Amino acid sequence: MPLFMDIHRDVEGSFEDVVEAHKMDLEKQGEYDVEYKNFWVDEDEGTIFCLFEGPSKEAGEHVHREAHGLTAEEIHEVTEGH
Amino acid sequence: MPLFMDIHRDVEGSFEDVVEAHKMDLEKQGEYDVEYKNFWVDEDEGTIFCLFEGPSKEAGEHVHREAHGLTAEEIHEVTEGH
Repeated sequence: MPLFMDIHRDVEGSFEDVVEAHKMDLEKQGEYDVEYKNFWVDEDEGTIFCLFEGPSKEAGEHVHREAHGLTAEEIHEVTEGH
Repeated sequence: MPLFMDIHRDVEGSFEDVVEAHKMDLEKQGEYDVEYKNFWVDEDEGTIFCLFEGPSKEAGEHVHREAHGLTAEEIHEVTEGH
């Protein structure tokens, strides 16, 4: 399954808010065959990076939109380093 | 030690080129008390994400500059999800 990294910008809220939003992703992701694997938050700048596996960029976008409405500004299909 | 995610844009070269550059980072990082932990490459768009621990953004930038000269466009101090 392809791997993707997305970038959210200018997100308001604390790290714990993002943790809660991520839990909503985990509840929703199965409907789109997506697995959110990890995320990283720059709380000062409101930037969030999400790493997920799934069939397409759009699948990840659907999960975010339906789980909490916070969609990403960019989604990159990536290969993980080794 | 703080954790950082950087973003490189418009990088030319293959995934394997990035693997080789990363090896150069690993050889250099000890001089700056940095640990490059992982990276992700969007080969089509030339976008690279590097995750590293270190004392500062600048420490990571020094490693990249001295190892191979490819510095990042952005460096974000991040908290990793759980």
